[in-house]
Amino acid sequence: MTRIDIPAGSPFGLANLPYGVFSTPGTGPRVGVRVGESVVDLAVLLGDDVFAQPVLNPFMAQGYDRWVAVREKIAEAVSGEVPDAAVHPVGEVRLHLPFEVADFVDFYASEHHASNLGRLFRPNAEPLMPNWKHLPVGYHGRGGTVVVSGTEIMRPLGQRKGPDEATPTFGPCRRLDIEAELGFVVGTGSQLGEAVPTGEFATRVFGVVLVNDWSARDIQAWEYVPLGPFLGKSFATSISPWVVPLLALEAARVPTPTQDPRPLPYLREDEPWGLDIDLVVSWNGQEVSRPPYREMYWSPAQMLAHLTVNGAVTRTGDLFASGTISGPHRDQCGAFIELTWGGQQPVRVGGAERTFLQDGDEVSITATAPGPDGSRIGFGEVTGRILPARKV
Amino acid sequence: MTRIDIPAGSPFGLANLPYGVFSTPGTGPRVGVRVGESVVDLAVLLGDDVFAQPVLNPFMAQGYDRWVAVREKIAEAVSGEVPDAAVHPVGEVRLHLPFEVADFVDFYASEHHASNLGRLFRPNAEPLMPNWKHLPVGYHGRGGTVVVSGTEIMRPLGQRKGPDEATPTFGPCRRLDIEAELGFVVGTGSQLGEAVPTGEFATRVFGVVLVNDWSARDIQAWEYVPLGPFLGKSFATSISPWVVPLLALEAARVPTPTQDPRPLPYLREDEPWGLDIDLVVSWNGQEVSRPPYREMYWSPAQMLAHLTVNGAVTRTGDLFASGTISGPHRDQCGAFIELTWGGQQPVRVGGAERTFLQDGDEVSITATAPGPDGSRIGFGEVTGRILPARKV
Repeated sequence: MTRIDIPAGSPFGLANLPYGVFSTPGTGPRVGVRVGESVVDLAVLLGDDVFAQPVLNPFMAQGYDRWVAVREKIAEAVSGEVPDAAVHPVGEVRLHLPFEVADFVDFYASEHHASNLGRLFRPNAEPLMPNWKHLPVGYHGRGGTVVVSGTEIMRPLGQRKGPDEATPTFGPCRRLDIEAELGFVVGTGSQLGEAVPTGEFATRVFGVVLVNDWSARDIQAWEYVPLGPFLGKSFATSISPWVVPLLALEAARVPTPTQDPRPLPYLREDEPWGLDIDLVVSWNGQEVSRPPYREMYWSPAQMLAHLTVNGAVTRTGDLFASGTISGPHRDQCGAFIELTWGGQQPVRVGGAERTFLQDGDEVSITATAPGPDGSRIGFGEVTGRILPARKV
Repeated sequence: MTRIDIPAGSPFGLANLPYGVFSTPGTGPRVGVRVGESVVDLAVLLGDDVFAQPVLNPFMAQGYDRWVAVREKIAEAVSGEVPDAAVHPVGEVRLHLPFEVADFVDFYASEHHASNLGRLFRPNAEPLMPNWKHLPVGYHGRGGTVVVSGTEIMRPLGQRKGPDEATPTFGPCRRLDIEAELGFVVGTGSQLGEAVPTGEFATRVFGVVLVNDWSARDIQAWEYVPLGPFLGKSFATSISPWVVPLLALEAARVPTPTQDPRPLPYLREDEPWGLDIDLVVSWNGQEVSRPPYREMYWSPAQMLAHLTVNGAVTRTGDLFASGTISGPHRDQCGAFIELTWGGQQPVRVGGAERTFLQDGDEVSITATAPGPDGSRIGFGEVTGRILPARKV
């Protein structure tokens, strides 16, 4: 038996307890919880086979009461002595995609981001579309290309046409970008024809991950009218390996910014689900932006209510992301197209200038939120390095 | 032992042999093949447990060589005497969703449909966008709300705003429509970073289903700018219960219409994958339209090459649909918004006038294709009846 050391001020203290899927040279992928600098094997700790699975889906599907009960059991168990075989240093395990992604939706919930992109993509029109303040605009993405942090990202090939070119050409993306987002993981789904009210957000959504929605801006700009982004996004979406339970984020809850006009009744909230989460974006190891989640116009409870109001099915493992998180200031932007204003204002990264991503570049997004008693809740990181395009 | 009767001229003769998933009061869902008016239990017929599964995915994942070999085995076995326990009258089984849908993509490959919708949605602009003849425009839909034929369709609720209204209102869809399409089912997937060339279409795609992509035009018109259709589509997409093997469609292959400008190299085909398939749309039992698939501008091989050219993953069970199939004539349109020209020109259905769908209406889409020696290959049907909206 052993005691787990939790360093003072660790963002992975007992108030966090995020879930992930890990493997060691001796064991296949299984569910673990992060405590300090350790990963605790839950099948060993709790003797429950639902954690001997290679994805979190079976546990998430057990529902809210189980999430609460298991979280209490874990907190109690890891505070005392635990079997040696249950504990692995985080540096010695491999982390996997923590859940099987069912449907993936990406919203567009930052007013600053939507306004910036409107100005950049449609310079002669109103930046915000007429619908934007009436509903959380969103679209479906590709669940099959959601990958875990650390997966290398091959520069996509595709069609792109510059404004001065007569016809499109085929080749490697020339404006490869990121989008720093949060992703919300559905634990308990809903039936065809059922709507999930804002008040059920906490019992339906299991937890939160960091998302980097890699974006090929030149491919996107050429393809996206009239049916929306497609290949400009579907080549890869990275998520962090740790799913932070929504139950760990009580102290992070804040009201959203004032919503004017007042939303239609199905989008109203009795209690706020804005979240005071601070993100940090690093480019080749240098911090370039600090997107503030608390600035997001639409809350995730509103996103879930909207996406089900027509009766769409939700399933265990559905992932819906916030869209790029951008604050009002340039150094709070969650996409490089905004940070460098369409590539016109390069930023210094290390000793070099950058507009969009070059081969070999690495981007890392981290985040923390307030926990109880002045502590911080850590989300870990989502990171990825750019590989050259496939040879054609 | 028994012999299976195949009525003369049956669209489910030995040249078709479509796969589905069925159950009887005594057995759970399992894979069957349709022969004449019978469903043959493949686990019983061939003694292979891959067919005792409730979805086609495990069999589809075995790959092209197995698809060919099993098809030959089935044709031989059902031509002779088969065990009584393997044969069920089609009217006595329940048909299920035949495969677990991974990612769902919907294309927009009919020039007539895209032009019509451009005129209706954007009356003061060019009907076709500049990108349309350079790439097969498409977007991701919601895999979780793909349902099998016969599932009742609840009228969706949502936000809609008429051109003369100052603000949106919430309520039942007022312009509920259909889209008659074909869907292509991926059997053998591809890896992150891999592109599937047009020449690999036949070894990657297992078969074809009929699709009714139910569409809430008022919800769609308000929400779709700039990220594309979302809730206007995600409330339900119906597919036929029979997956017609691509191997059954050799005699249906035709060139696509001339593509001008010539597509970029990755979209070119060495052999044609246009398909001479005739659809029939019936509204409350009355035939209202005959969409011709052979008019589609982009082939399904081009769709698959396009959707993977950026390195997106494909998986067993991915479904990509053609988009609405419309021919050049009004009575060849695969959506009621075209058939009634935006609801301005009602059609007579039975004794009544119709523009969009009313509660209780039923729509059925059927199709046939040429088979060998003058025979016809049947796709069965995809049907659905409209239920009133959920009470709010």
